[in-house]
Amino acid sequence: MTWVIGIDLGGSKIALGLVSPDDQILNRRRIDTDADEGVESVTDRISAQVDSLKLDLPRRETVAGVGVGAPGLLDPVSGDLYMLVNLPGISNTPFRAILQEKLSLPVKLDHDAKVAALGEFHFGAGRDRDSMIYIVIGTGVGAAIIYEGRLIYGESNSAGESGHMTVDPNGRLCHCGSRGCLETYTSGPALVKAYAAASGETITGAEVTRRAAAGDVVALRVLREAGRALGIAIASIAMTVNIEQFVIGGSVASAGDLLLDPARAAVPKYSFKAVSDRLRITASTLGEDAPIYGAAYLARMLLRNRP
Amino acid sequence: MTWVIGIDLGGSKIALGLVSPDDQILNRRRIDTDADEGVESVTDRISAQVDSLKLDLPRRETVAGVGVGAPGLLDPVSGDLYMLVNLPGISNTPFRAILQEKLSLPVKLDHDAKVAALGEFHFGAGRDRDSMIYIVIGTGVGAAIIYEGRLIYGESNSAGESGHMTVDPNGRLCHCGSRGCLETYTSGPALVKAYAAASGETITGAEVTRRAAAGDVVALRVLREAGRALGIAIASIAMTVNIEQFVIGGSVASAGDLLLDPARAAVPKYSFKAVSDRLRITASTLGEDAPIYGAAYLARMLLRNRP
Repeated sequence: MTWVIGIDLGGSKIALGLVSPDDQILNRRRIDTDADEGVESVTDRISAQVDSLKLDLPRRETVAGVGVGAPGLLDPVSGDLYMLVNLPGISNTPFRAILQEKLSLPVKLDHDAKVAALGEFHFGAGRDRDSMIYIVIGTGVGAAIIYEGRLIYGESNSAGESGHMTVDPNGRLCHCGSRGCLETYTSGPALVKAYAAASGETITGAEVTRRAAAGDVVALRVLREAGRALGIAIASIAMTVNIEQFVIGGSVASAGDLLLDPARAAVPKYSFKAVSDRLRITASTLGEDAPIYGAAYLARMLLRNRP
Repeated sequence: MTWVIGIDLGGSKIALGLVSPDDQILNRRRIDTDADEGVESVTDRISAQVDSLKLDLPRRETVAGVGVGAPGLLDPVSGDLYMLVNLPGISNTPFRAILQEKLSLPVKLDHDAKVAALGEFHFGAGRDRDSMIYIVIGTGVGAAIIYEGRLIYGESNSAGESGHMTVDPNGRLCHCGSRGCLETYTSGPALVKAYAAASGETITGAEVTRRAAAGDVVALRVLREAGRALGIAIASIAMTVNIEQFVIGGSVASAGDLLLDPARAAVPKYSFKAVSDRLRITASTLGEDAPIYGAAYLARMLLRNRP
């Protein structure tokens, strides 16, 4: 039984967690990402936090491995980062290899949505399931598919770009160039835009959720439309792959049932009863810790020499 | 090396093929399904055709097993048929067990789209691929996903109901009760309806294709719209599962590029370049033989004791 460290490498923050052999987060660290300083700086600062977390270990224990979740295009086998839209400073670097050398510890790296999905699947909302789809809704929308216990990567490591599946081919223009992508209805920026369009007032996505909870009819309608689009996308995914547990995470998921109830209501309208009757949409139970748990799991699997 | 028989149990016809150890269809039989006569009659008549095909065997050879593809809800493990919309006469019967007893041969049964997909994957348009999605377009639209060499069944054996994924949530009403299902744009009956709506003339789906090939502008537009809907659905599926080879079969696929070119044109509009650049949409190369090849493969796997 081993101690590991899980790392959530985010666009603005890096969160680290020291995870015990019985899968508890014993302690955490949180630093700014500051990717503009470059890969040497980022990995040096991660290394310092790992050293600091090691001081929290019980006597005679050591950290055996490290897992990392990162946003954007990457190679999960080599651990090289390709294009990270929000992190140009560390794009196109052999990030995993650099970090592994600095830490003198085995490091495994994968895409953040997949890593968070592993967390929810093994320790959170998917704990009792054989298959699960995790959808993370924040600035963008991503997904990860776990089928019969294994992550689906797709043929070019691009599975899970469900934020850009088409909800309405004549719908809103997306920054990706397509029309009516899920992300144009169900993401932080989409909530901001929809609220501004309806009220003339520009507020944050978090504020839209807060106002909806307080009964603001415009905010409620914005979340209802976002939830409906999410439900249509979930129904289409479920009709194709017949996976029955959907777990929704990311900052926008903090809206909870204000977002998920409209999604649940849309599913039976856009799928077979045999599918919709068995489909469950639940909020992440691990929240911001999901990527840390998942990254810790990644590290454990690496140590057990499993792919 | 063994001889097997592949059976395509269709709504109106049953096709049988005697398949050689080197995967050639040596001979065929074709009879009416007449499911209304009941399961005893259908299995008796299949049995008679199997006996007849055995006469075509080379001296001293025998048939070692039989595979069957059947439409509708079924259990691929037991081989029980549940609800077959177009075949009520044999619905809710232990079809595989009855046939196996009559033939005194091992019989394996699975869903027709999956069986045809196995045919294309191992012997047809997917022969050089690791993963593939087969979409069959006829009276209805079904699909089968092969990922890393294995069929995806989903959690309740309902994977592949992609004919009812939503292409336009405000679109045409589908017989399933939803709106804007792929099947309302891309199926034989959809072509008939669209042509009638545009011209006032009711002709068959096959005739729509024939007229389009002859330059009829209405028929060309009908196929263009059907192809566009198909492309939108393919793009959404590809963005989620990142499978890059789509093979289109079924009677409507005989329209060939008149249907597939508009689908190919829609894909880049509704998916990332990284996905669309690698995506290939091709017509079935085995046509009506795909289910026979796939059923033969099913029989071989059963004999090799693989699930």
